[in-house]
Amino acid sequence: MTATEPTHRSRARIAAPGEGIGLDELALATRNHGMPLEALRYDVTPPGLHYVLTHYDIPAVDPATWSLEVGGAVARPLRLSLDDLRRRPAVTSRVLLECAGNGRARYEPRPVSQPWLLEAVGTAEWTGTPLAPLLEEAGPADGAVDVAFTGADHGVERGVEQDYARGLPLAEAVRPEVLLVWGMNGMPLPPQHGAPLRLLVPGWYGMAHVKWLTRIEVLDRPFDGYQNTTAYRLKVDAAEAGEPVTRIAPRALLAPPGWPDFMTRERFLRPGPVTLTGRAWSGRAPIQGVEVSTDGGATWSPAEVAPADPAHPWAWRAWTFPWTAEPGSWELLARATDAEGSQPTEQVWNRQGMANNLVQRVPVTVLG
Amino acid sequence: MTATEPTHRSRARIAAPGEGIGLDELALATRNHGMPLEALRYDVTPPGLHYVLTHYDIPAVDPATWSLEVGGAVARPLRLSLDDLRRRPAVTSRVLLECAGNGRARYEPRPVSQPWLLEAVGTAEWTGTPLAPLLEEAGPADGAVDVAFTGADHGVERGVEQDYARGLPLAEAVRPEVLLVWGMNGMPLPPQHGAPLRLLVPGWYGMAHVKWLTRIEVLDRPFDGYQNTTAYRLKVDAAEAGEPVTRIAPRALLAPPGWPDFMTRERFLRPGPVTLTGRAWSGRAPIQGVEVSTDGGATWSPAEVAPADPAHPWAWRAWTFPWTAEPGSWELLARATDAEGSQPTEQVWNRQGMANNLVQRVPVTVLG
Repeated sequence: MTATEPTHRSRARIAAPGEGIGLDELALATRNHGMPLEALRYDVTPPGLHYVLTHYDIPAVDPATWSLEVGGAVARPLRLSLDDLRRRPAVTSRVLLECAGNGRARYEPRPVSQPWLLEAVGTAEWTGTPLAPLLEEAGPADGAVDVAFTGADHGVERGVEQDYARGLPLAEAVRPEVLLVWGMNGMPLPPQHGAPLRLLVPGWYGMAHVKWLTRIEVLDRPFDGYQNTTAYRLKVDAAEAGEPVTRIAPRALLAPPGWPDFMTRERFLRPGPVTLTGRAWSGRAPIQGVEVSTDGGATWSPAEVAPADPAHPWAWRAWTFPWTAEPGSWELLARATDAEGSQPTEQVWNRQGMANNLVQRVPVTVLG
Repeated sequence: MTATEPTHRSRARIAAPGEGIGLDELALATRNHGMPLEALRYDVTPPGLHYVLTHYDIPAVDPATWSLEVGGAVARPLRLSLDDLRRRPAVTSRVLLECAGNGRARYEPRPVSQPWLLEAVGTAEWTGTPLAPLLEEAGPADGAVDVAFTGADHGVERGVEQDYARGLPLAEAVRPEVLLVWGMNGMPLPPQHGAPLRLLVPGWYGMAHVKWLTRIEVLDRPFDGYQNTTAYRLKVDAAEAGEPVTRIAPRALLAPPGWPDFMTRERFLRPGPVTLTGRAWSGRAPIQGVEVSTDGGATWSPAEVAPADPAHPWAWRAWTFPWTAEPGSWELLARATDAEGSQPTEQVWNRQGMANNLVQRVPVTVLG
């Protein structure tokens, strides 16, 4: 199977107009975890509130017998235990992660996959060791181009049985911020986040941060595994090869103000001054600004964005916007801008619902 | 509004035949967290994998200024800081929790609410102080019948704006296993589980374990708040008052064997011997046994259930069942029995989808 000759099974399904969420999508939504948007209030997402997406089951990995293999096109293949890795220089880095499918469930028509609304985000303090020196010790061959990372999670997608594996260009893999991590928020990595070891590629969507890592293989050819050639591609027609999904596009999210209706999730607040708050980020270039609209996008005003913190270049940034809520119905929007552009206010559709950064819309009712 | 004269807004909505999951149900599914069923492998559910249901937003409570009020029909009203509570005798208890709505999404017709499949469970080590001595110090009045517990979480349900509040019969509230807890799995209670303090009522469905507790009020009359009189009732017709939801009915869950298809969640495994594993529990009486069927419920055989552990009377119990998987399609079922009966193999429907303990069905394909 190749990306340019898709079989029926290799095509992502697109929901019919008006088709409700199916039990298959629901099974994904109930097992994968979103970050409730009120948790935008925390600089570091508390344990258990960070988003989680696992393609297959969370594997049971015994850290005592686990080891990491580094091989392929290298001069000196390595095998490292968790203790070996922990003896290496350790760093802790505050990094935002976002799933490439965030926002997919509001696409029209809807690609049938994990149905995220907007909650597939989180920021954690990750502890691990830089990958570059380890690769350097292994000694990549002169013609090396990609590095393949394989996890212990096993499953099948569109007919292809596989261990989850992703390729990353060697030039990206040796960036200093790329880590092999065993700790999260000062604790051992939890099972659902890849224990005992995961890859961390700050700035990239979540699919690059391979969990339950077992093998790193340097390649002298482009990686042609399923997750790179079929799954994470930006394409409108099934027949096209599409562009690969890479870095996180800019996004601002607003913590919905007021209180919700349990079932409808409608929001209510009392009239008067209210400070709208949220976070903004981009994985491709620094955030230049955040704008807020309280009238459904008719007019926009700049929010106050917290200064970039040199200690945490890969974290999200807080923003605030003062609003005087007057009785009635309002639609609140926020959009981020980085050096490459702003979030779109109309959807830019692709058939797998990837890298969508359409602006968030938060309808609210201000009581009389 | 009373339970016997429901207005339109006070009725739970029932989905039409064939109606897919709506965006409102999805918004609940993506913000509330289920426990992926492979996590049945852990005696104690790791941090972040325990189920979470919050009716409204997770409130921001400052533990430094927070205090708990104990009042109502008592001789000596109390106000306690978190430090006051921590100075009291502390116990740690391993307790299973389950949401009263677990399994609702497979009901036919489907009550429209949080659409759990079967993952609204978890077992944690909770640390706190027994409630009974505290109530004793406050001195309930002679005619006291109920105790009302109010949280800091605020929202609206079917037109009723409220802080989440539940009443518990005084006789239940003074049982020795009922705790006020500030710790979970050896760590401070996380925000989504009720920080800084929640109620723990072992054996009862999750709605009783009030989170973000701010006030305990002893009542000389039955509590008539929304969550007891309207929300958590077992009724088939909207007009009936219905029975209250109380203790957890028996249930066995099977950790689905093999590996999944990412999208369809179909399960595959290779032929040969496989040990099926799972957990069983009941909040109303000890588990007497677990049976497994591998032929869709035509025949049943007893599983081996781990002995009851006197140290953890409120935890779930592990069970195993040896199976020789032969090529073909199979449907695996498990059912628990306690002193009051077994799980049903046909649904027992109620209009809010509460306390449903229909047996789980796990279709699997054994490869040739």
